[in-house]
Amino acid sequence: MTHHGAELTMRPPGPLHLRLLRLLRDQGPVSRAQLSDALDVPRPRLVAELERLVAAGYVAEAGPAASRGGRRSTLVELSRHLRFAAVDLGATSIDVEVTDGRLEPVAAYSEPADIRSGPKAILHRVDELLAKAKIDGAYERLDAIGIGVPGPVSFRDGVPVSPPIMPGWDRFPVRDLLAREHGCPAVVDNDVNIMAIGERHAGVVPSVDDFMFVKIGTGIGCGIYLSSEVYRGTDGCAGDIGHIQVDAHGPVCACGNVGCLEAVFGGAALARDAAAVARSGASAALADRLGEHGSLSARDVGEGAAEGDATCIQLIRAGGQAVGGVLAGLVSFANPSMIVIGGGLAQLGHLLLAEIRSVVYRRSLPLATSNLPVVLTELGPRAGVTGAAVLASDLAFEQMA
Amino acid sequence: MTHHGAELTMRPPGPLHLRLLRLLRDQGPVSRAQLSDALDVPRPRLVAELERLVAAGYVAEAGPAASRGGRRSTLVELSRHLRFAAVDLGATSIDVEVTDGRLEPVAAYSEPADIRSGPKAILHRVDELLAKAKIDGAYERLDAIGIGVPGPVSFRDGVPVSPPIMPGWDRFPVRDLLAREHGCPAVVDNDVNIMAIGERHAGVVPSVDDFMFVKIGTGIGCGIYLSSEVYRGTDGCAGDIGHIQVDAHGPVCACGNVGCLEAVFGGAALARDAAAVARSGASAALADRLGEHGSLSARDVGEGAAEGDATCIQLIRAGGQAVGGVLAGLVSFANPSMIVIGGGLAQLGHLLLAEIRSVVYRRSLPLATSNLPVVLTELGPRAGVTGAAVLASDLAFEQMA
Repeated sequence: MTHHGAELTMRPPGPLHLRLLRLLRDQGPVSRAQLSDALDVPRPRLVAELERLVAAGYVAEAGPAASRGGRRSTLVELSRHLRFAAVDLGATSIDVEVTDGRLEPVAAYSEPADIRSGPKAILHRVDELLAKAKIDGAYERLDAIGIGVPGPVSFRDGVPVSPPIMPGWDRFPVRDLLAREHGCPAVVDNDVNIMAIGERHAGVVPSVDDFMFVKIGTGIGCGIYLSSEVYRGTDGCAGDIGHIQVDAHGPVCACGNVGCLEAVFGGAALARDAAAVARSGASAALADRLGEHGSLSARDVGEGAAEGDATCIQLIRAGGQAVGGVLAGLVSFANPSMIVIGGGLAQLGHLLLAEIRSVVYRRSLPLATSNLPVVLTELGPRAGVTGAAVLASDLAFEQMA
Repeated sequence: MTHHGAELTMRPPGPLHLRLLRLLRDQGPVSRAQLSDALDVPRPRLVAELERLVAAGYVAEAGPAASRGGRRSTLVELSRHLRFAAVDLGATSIDVEVTDGRLEPVAAYSEPADIRSGPKAILHRVDELLAKAKIDGAYERLDAIGIGVPGPVSFRDGVPVSPPIMPGWDRFPVRDLLAREHGCPAVVDNDVNIMAIGERHAGVVPSVDDFMFVKIGTGIGCGIYLSSEVYRGTDGCAGDIGHIQVDAHGPVCACGNVGCLEAVFGGAALARDAAAVARSGASAALADRLGEHGSLSARDVGEGAAEGDATCIQLIRAGGQAVGGVLAGLVSFANPSMIVIGGGLAQLGHLLLAEIRSVVYRRSLPLATSNLPVVLTELGPRAGVTGAAVLASDLAFEQMA
């Protein structure tokens, strides 16, 4: 049985060049001696691989390492010329970053945009932002592009598939168009998956192999990591938890069903409920804000709650209970190691988090929650572009064989 | 991206001897030429490996193969002396099979037993049944034992962990005790997992990599296959869907919460509801049976429904709706390729299945159900022992290195 257990934890390590490039990306400059230890390969094989990657321009020498007593070793690092483009398309926003090989941003742009404008208009704007970055000196050429879109994606084909809130995008060749336009490999994924990837790379879950990243934004979705890999499901739509029914007598959802989680909570539902409460006179805080701005958003409810408005607090608590109820079931099903709450409504902070936690801990199988942290995102709005950069770099590294 | 996609589908193939032994288990006698093709290894390496396995007594010659035009090839097969023990412990039953190398039963025993008698009494009875099989000539020595238990299991440690309906079993060294007693490796898993493994090996899902096996018995649980492997979760309790809340105002569950799926449907809940209905006079079919037997079970409800008793039909439909509602959410979350319904209540057949399907197809994300079969088990009560035999043989083969 130790034998059996060992086989389960021995994940395929991937080819040496990929492991090496990832290590330089994640750790920065290291000595040949450290590389040889960390990658567990004989020194001659490592040296040969490094020579090859240096000759190809992917890796460079970076000065002498601190002595380990014996011969002085030389540091190596990723080429300073590596550049990745990371794009996070939301329902109402475009975020673009150009990063170096270590995924540190060299240029970043954010602007509002309506995904319903269609793929041509949106991707044209992405191209303009990347052209601007080039003019600004952020890169000469891109080594890979990663992009997230707010809907189901066929990861293999690099296209959105029947995305409910993205009219005109169904099977649009996003990957191939970006690759052709910029002369580099490209990768397309769901926006929640790239957030989960980003959070694991640089956020609150660096060493956790099985976790759920729950995005609560305009809509609600879940990125799933299982055994250190994003789990996408048979059709690429795993994690679409926004349409799980939480109230058989609840509001009608945009999908046509009744009482979906997204119809009960999430940015759009919260804005709707806030407006109703403001008009009913139940909340002075919201009535004031509605009068001032003409409309209400989740931010107004969060501000009202921070001021102690009881109705705002109650709205957030009810939402947290709805999310927590769904997550409790998913915890019993999937038995994850951690849950991360992200997306725009994560700004509602610990009031929301406390309610989600309370329901999850009360309603899930005790064994599954005995050691289950439920935490807020650390990367916040940068989770998506960070994950897109990780995907882009992995793709580029794979092709540096 | 084709590159990236390829990496995702290239699962670790495992060492050659393991692939070879599994192939002989699953295909029966094959020629060296067929083996070389199927395993995609050079002929000399295959021949050397076969010689080693023949010398060790694991593989044997089995006469000449049909000619392929060139030199006549010889068939090889697993040694006819291989024997595996497969044990399926239910809440109220013990099933034991001794199988040959191809997992065909050589001896089989089934008897009622109360898991609450504790590990010493139950495992002693398992030992007695295996001793009987030995006296009956089913085996001289066992090559491995696989056992399933009705509760969460630490697969790595080979022990039950906080199993709710198995008093006295918490962290009892089931694996080590069986291994010592019988002088062979042993493996312990959850009963629903072994059913899923069995169904994939010999039942309705042979070539499906991502599916859910839903056991509806006294309790309700789910075996999860992801990327061709059983997914057990962080604490080994993934798939415990019986305690997902389906009715905030439903009956109190044994776990202390309200309206759990198991408290609403499943063998125990259905027997309870049937008795209430019989006493209320709403069902003549059930009142007759209660008078006759003194108690009611799911079988009585099934028979009543088959006779056209409207109340029995309604009880099954309501149960199917509760199960379907939970599965609809899990389909949106996990996006599986197939759902198999098994366990004792699968005997309720197509009336139950139709109701589950109807809710799943109506309530899940359309993309996730566009090609999602929901089917009944093909192995029925033998699913568990079949899966236990698969686990035992995999373990034995691994150790034949």
